[in-house]
Amino acid sequence: MGSFTDSTNSHPVVSVVPVVSIVMGSDSDLKVMKDAAKALEEFGVPYEMTILSAHRTPEKTSVYAQNAEKRGIEVIIAGAGGAAHLPGVIASLCNIPVIGVPIKSTAFDGMDSLLSIVQMPKGIPVATVGINNAYNAGLLAVKMLSLKYAELRERTTEYRQKMAQEVEKKAKLLEEVGYERYEQCKEEGK
Amino acid sequence: MGSFTDSTNSHPVVSVVPVVSIVMGSDSDLKVMKDAAKALEEFGVPYEMTILSAHRTPEKTSVYAQNAEKRGIEVIIAGAGGAAHLPGVIASLCNIPVIGVPIKSTAFDGMDSLLSIVQMPKGIPVATVGINNAYNAGLLAVKMLSLKYAELRERTTEYRQKMAQEVEKKAKLLEEVGYERYEQCKEEGK
Amino acid sequence: MGSFTDSTNSHPVVSVVPVVSIVMGSDSDLKVMKDAAKALEEFGVPYEMTILSAHRTPEKTSVYAQNAEKRGIEVIIAGAGGAAHLPGVIASLCNIPVIGVPIKSTAFDGMDSLLSIVQMPKGIPVATVGINNAYNAGLLAVKMLSLKYAELRERTTEYRQKMAQEVEKKAKLLEEVGYERYEQCKEEGK
Amino acid sequence: MGSFTDSTNSHPVVSVVPVVSIVMGSDSDLKVMKDAAKALEEFGVPYEMTILSAHRTPEKTSVYAQNAEKRGIEVIIAGAGGAAHLPGVIASLCNIPVIGVPIKSTAFDGMDSLLSIVQMPKGIPVATVGINNAYNAGLLAVKMLSLKYAELRERTTEYRQKMAQEVEKKAKLLEEVGYERYEQCKEEGK
Amino acid sequence: MGSFTDSTNSHPVVSVVPVVSIVMGSDSDLKVMKDAAKALEEFGVPYEMTILSAHRTPEKTSVYAQNAEKRGIEVIIAGAGGAAHLPGVIASLCNIPVIGVPIKSTAFDGMDSLLSIVQMPKGIPVATVGINNAYNAGLLAVKMLSLKYAELRERTTEYRQKMAQEVEKKAKLLEEVGYERYEQCKEEGK
Amino acid sequence: MGSFTDSTNSHPVVSVVPVVSIVMGSDSDLKVMKDAAKALEEFGVPYEMTILSAHRTPEKTSVYAQNAEKRGIEVIIAGAGGAAHLPGVIASLCNIPVIGVPIKSTAFDGMDSLLSIVQMPKGIPVATVGINNAYNAGLLAVKMLSLKYAELRERTTEYRQKMAQEVEKKAKLLEEVGYERYEQCKEEGK
Amino acid sequence: MGSFTDSTNSHPVVSVVPVVSIVMGSDSDLKVMKDAAKALEEFGVPYEMTILSAHRTPEKTSVYAQNAEKRGIEVIIAGAGGAAHLPGVIASLCNIPVIGVPIKSTAFDGMDSLLSIVQMPKGIPVATVGINNAYNAGLLAVKMLSLKYAELRERTTEYRQKMAQEVEKKAKLLEEVGYERYEQCKEEGK
Amino acid sequence: MGSFTDSTNSHPVVSVVPVVSIVMGSDSDLKVMKDAAKALEEFGVPYEMTILSAHRTPEKTSVYAQNAEKRGIEVIIAGAGGAAHLPGVIASLCNIPVIGVPIKSTAFDGMDSLLSIVQMPKGIPVATVGINNAYNAGLLAVKMLSLKYAELRERTTEYRQKMAQEVEKKAKLLEEVGYERYEQCKEEGK
Repeated sequence: MGSFTDSTNSHPVVSVVPVVSIVMGSDSDLKVMKDAAKALEEFGVPYEMTILSAHRTPEKTSVYAQNAEKRGIEVIIAGAGGAAHLPGVIASLCNIPVIGVPIKSTAFDGMDSLLSIVQMPKGIPVATVGINNAYNAGLLAVKMLSLKYAELRERTTEYRQKMAQEVEKKAKLLEEVGYERYEQCKEEGK
Repeated sequence: MGSFTDSTNSHPVVSVVPVVSIVMGSDSDLKVMKDAAKALEEFGVPYEMTILSAHRTPEKTSVYAQNAEKRGIEVIIAGAGGAAHLPGVIASLCNIPVIGVPIKSTAFDGMDSLLSIVQMPKGIPVATVGINNAYNAGLLAVKMLSLKYAELRERTTEYRQKMAQEVEKKAKLLEEVGYERYEQCKEEGK
Repeated sequence: MGSFTDSTNSHPVVSVVPVVSIVMGSDSDLKVMKDAAKALEEFGVPYEMTILSAHRTPEKTSVYAQNAEKRGIEVIIAGAGGAAHLPGVIASLCNIPVIGVPIKSTAFDGMDSLLSIVQMPKGIPVATVGINNAYNAGLLAVKMLSLKYAELRERTTEYRQKMAQEVEKKAKLLEEVGYERYEQCKEEGK
Repeated sequence: MGSFTDSTNSHPVVSVVPVVSIVMGSDSDLKVMKDAAKALEEFGVPYEMTILSAHRTPEKTSVYAQNAEKRGIEVIIAGAGGAAHLPGVIASLCNIPVIGVPIKSTAFDGMDSLLSIVQMPKGIPVATVGINNAYNAGLLAVKMLSLKYAELRERTTEYRQKMAQEVEKKAKLLEEVGYERYEQCKEEGK
Repeated sequence: MGSFTDSTNSHPVVSVVPVVSIVMGSDSDLKVMKDAAKALEEFGVPYEMTILSAHRTPEKTSVYAQNAEKRGIEVIIAGAGGAAHLPGVIASLCNIPVIGVPIKSTAFDGMDSLLSIVQMPKGIPVATVGINNAYNAGLLAVKMLSLKYAELRERTTEYRQKMAQEVEKKAKLLEEVGYERYEQCKEEGK
Repeated sequence: MGSFTDSTNSHPVVSVVPVVSIVMGSDSDLKVMKDAAKALEEFGVPYEMTILSAHRTPEKTSVYAQNAEKRGIEVIIAGAGGAAHLPGVIASLCNIPVIGVPIKSTAFDGMDSLLSIVQMPKGIPVATVGINNAYNAGLLAVKMLSLKYAELRERTTEYRQKMAQEVEKKAKLLEEVGYERYEQCKEEGK
Repeated sequence: MGSFTDSTNSHPVVSVVPVVSIVMGSDSDLKVMKDAAKALEEFGVPYEMTILSAHRTPEKTSVYAQNAEKRGIEVIIAGAGGAAHLPGVIASLCNIPVIGVPIKSTAFDGMDSLLSIVQMPKGIPVATVGINNAYNAGLLAVKMLSLKYAELRERTTEYRQKMAQEVEKKAKLLEEVGYERYEQCKEEGK
Repeated sequence: MGSFTDSTNSHPVVSVVPVVSIVMGSDSDLKVMKDAAKALEEFGVPYEMTILSAHRTPEKTSVYAQNAEKRGIEVIIAGAGGAAHLPGVIASLCNIPVIGVPIKSTAFDGMDSLLSIVQMPKGIPVATVGINNAYNAGLLAVKMLSLKYAELRERTTEYRQKMAQEVEKKAKLLEEVGYERYEQCKEEGK
């Protein structure tokens, strides 16, 4: 399992081997879960990414969870939908923190996914983020890693400033041109 | 694991060893799950009963699910609440049918338990019954076993007749005495 | 009622006559319920399939449920949406197990269908699967029949292995090519 | 079935034999359903009351529904909880209007009962009232009967006036004594 | 208000003047509410149809409700969405039965409409049908009117038979051609 | 209607006659709605309080809403539960702002009340506060009145300071004594 | 912050500087929130409009809220979706009334937005309107301002009359042409 | 703010000053939030605990969040109920990870708290745990800290083993004595 996807397009700051592992229950979750990878890339955090099913590959999931820490993984991000057991099943088998991403399911808007992930029993926490919000799962992993890797804290501060600047730029445009011309002006890159 | 609780107070018709295994995630579920045992006792189906946690005893759960069939178990009844993964985790590891009982949780009236159990992905079905309805889980196990053990079909027919008679007896009492005197007359055994 | 649809394209292992009966409340449910037939075909289980409405053809439904067992049916799969009474009404009239498929309705994402099917009273269980998950209903029927027909257990083991292999194949592709190239490589059949 | 409970304490205006039939799925529903009887008594409408279970006494329910009209019943009030099929099953077998009372269930506050009753398919309407609001079911039956029995319209007008007077009396007391003394003054019968 | 839409294309059996009044809160509800008119036309029940808003035309609504009975209206069908007050507001001002149709709203799938209509307080019932099920509202009006107009009972019996025949015809086609060819054969009119 | 409850125990700052009118659908709502009165008393805003039912006293409600402004009322606070039409019905008949308080109902935890009040159609807004949060309705009325009565703004500033001080006092106690001794120390008035 | 968007296309009646401030959490909310501006324009109320994020620009939000009153703002309208904190965060920092608009989110139909806005704790009210109903937020602001600016009351009366006329015009058309020809006739401007 | 509650009864392993800060919106949340403290004490992690309200003490909350990192805090645990903004507001103002505990509210079983905390926008993650599950918040903090403090990983392994042993002990008792005698034997300490 050493040949997981490497984030070769990132600029690793914390390690040359993956420290975050992104897993998902099905390849149909990839369109959501890739946002976790993108967040990690923005911060230069090396990661691996694969597919694991709590139900369809239970043995592999078990082996994966029990070996992740030894392989150098420090945070796991797991996305799943419906009766979303993957994050909880992994969390029950390892010491490192597990972040759960509830995937919006075809029924109930992802409420089934959310409750299956967040309502874990006493003793086995899963750090749950919003429906389909894999990007925030990536950011949360960065925040956790920043406990150990000081340079990530700086990047987090920069990230928050950049985020504020983007909002303020839009605010300024809206204040200047009004709501009727906003969309057009925004497209024109004003 | 050969020393599970035996239903010694039942009159086994289908086997002298347990053919149904009742498991639950916590001993706090016992007050609900004992109704599954009672239903099996009424039909003389030998069963075993124990506690297994998908999250707190993941390895034991894995071993249990992989060996159940070899040990002669033909149906598994699994009860769990909250992020209720136990029925699904077991179902992913064995060929025999798994019946899931959603336990009413402290939040959301058991909706979290229900969705975590019933919304299983394609490939891994769990036969779900109503919230806290462990008695029906027992009955459903009997209905499944009656495919193989013909005498259980007869007992099911008798059971349904008895059930109808009980309703009709109450109906007759209500028709005779009216709603104002019903409770009192019922207590007096009329 | 002997002329139900026969699964002639399957390779029957358990019987030459239908042992599973698939019914649905409306022909608009067919696009969902055909998945139950497909699952049974994969396992070579002969089945019949028809339309029955608890509300629009109540007498026929009653006759059907009371005669199913005599006709050799061993498991019934019933799909219905909205105030989904069909599975429960059938279950109240026969000894054999009934599997309920909640069809996603036009309002409430199928929550009405799910609650109308799963929340059956004590005494009349319906084995409920996930919203629109007729395929799992077929698999659950196979698991039930495997209590009696040993060759189905083997096929179930094979099925689970095949399912794991498919996931692992996708996992390997994702690990090799990364999320950006995954969709393209998958289409190219790598 | 001719010996149903007669509302002997009422003052029949429309008939000397029952014209409304109140049925419920279980005698545990009686504490709610008796309010339907009380509403009919207030208006002097003769009724019968019994227990019928769509699931535990399906044949009796079928016979009941098919004969109700012949026996002179003009409106049926049916209460049920959980997977509440009784009102819909009856409505599918008779021409006369059926009023459904969703009983508050032990889980989901009666949402399961409500959806199982109100979401009937095209062709089989059930006139649904609020959770546990059997009193309103009785009133609705009166409003339906008033199409045929003119004296009931007068009583309905009187009823609405009386209802308004009761509210106005309370309003006047609150305006006079203020919220701090209201409860005490109300108890003292001011 | 005597110039309401007359159902001139129907074959009146019960009256030459409208006996049912169909009202709705907005003309955007017309695409749903016209099904109520169609049901009434099938049974030859003369009706009128207009737009009334509990909130935007409160005085007109008040006058309408207080005069409906005098104008010969025997049943009112009211459709509304969101904070759906129209059926309840009308029911509070007249003696005749009011049927409420919860319109599927842009948020919450019509749950807001359903609860705003069905959860009326003690004393003011509204006969609620399913989300967007205006057709059933029309049928329910017919069932109510059949208390008074005997010929409608016959038509209801015929309607139920016709409904059963349509289902049985589809069932037969599915049994004959199987699920794979059903849609095609149905289109070809087999 | 000039003899409404006067808040004689308050210290009026804005007027000597009531400027806020508190109404509720039933006297059972009084235990919740009195908190609105208390909030107004704290700020010295004179109010009146009475019972009005959109359904049981529709004419009185209509007259009330149409005359409120003329009588000097500047803000109306209306509480109701279930199919909670009172705030919306009043809002449709007057120009002044109406604040709606959703009362926690016996079913659905007040979700029916909330949706019936907040989901008003375009054109008729109701300013909705949280379930049972009549106190906040009172405060919101004060905030509205402070547009006109400047002294209320000062009191609002003081109120917010006092609120912060109370929290900070508790925070300090918890920081000093720890969670194990907090309750005891708080009772002892430390 | 003095250069906010001015409603130059309106005909100010109450002031020449903005008295209402419309803010939103993201420019993706603009398509909803512009309806608040339109409502204010209809009544000639000068407003400003900008983007503020409780989470992405917390300091700016804080400064904004603390200075709004001094800048002459009398009512704030704040729209937000998901974990919608903006209205509550602003309300906690200023004396003037805050109206919250729950934006329909990508999951849960805006239920998350609604509950995050309406369920504010005791002491900090937010005047909540319906999902996406920014137009009503604008109207509610007008109703609040009319406490101080008498000419707005007249305009509100006119607005309500105009609203009634529009409904009555449509009602008349439907009564005249019937439901089958309504859409066509409406388009033709009859 | 340097005098926060110190966990003097713990055996600090990672630091002599608090590294986790537990905050809550109200002292009524203390009965839930103390479980977070207990979890930290079990692992010997020094913590501080106080009360902060996003709405009632907004300035203090702002100062707290901006200074937490400088004061040596590495993880923040924030509990809140209803429109639960505290965790999100803190997360928007600091780099370190914030864990949110949704407190079960008086309405909606804590669904409002859950959605207000978990549905944070892109850019500002909050690590959400289950309703009232403050103990798991403490454990999650330990898992996060174990990235940096290796001895915590060992303790986590021990903790998981101890948890499994407790379940197995109960399982063994149930297997030995059966469900009828379980409660009694458990109390007797067998």
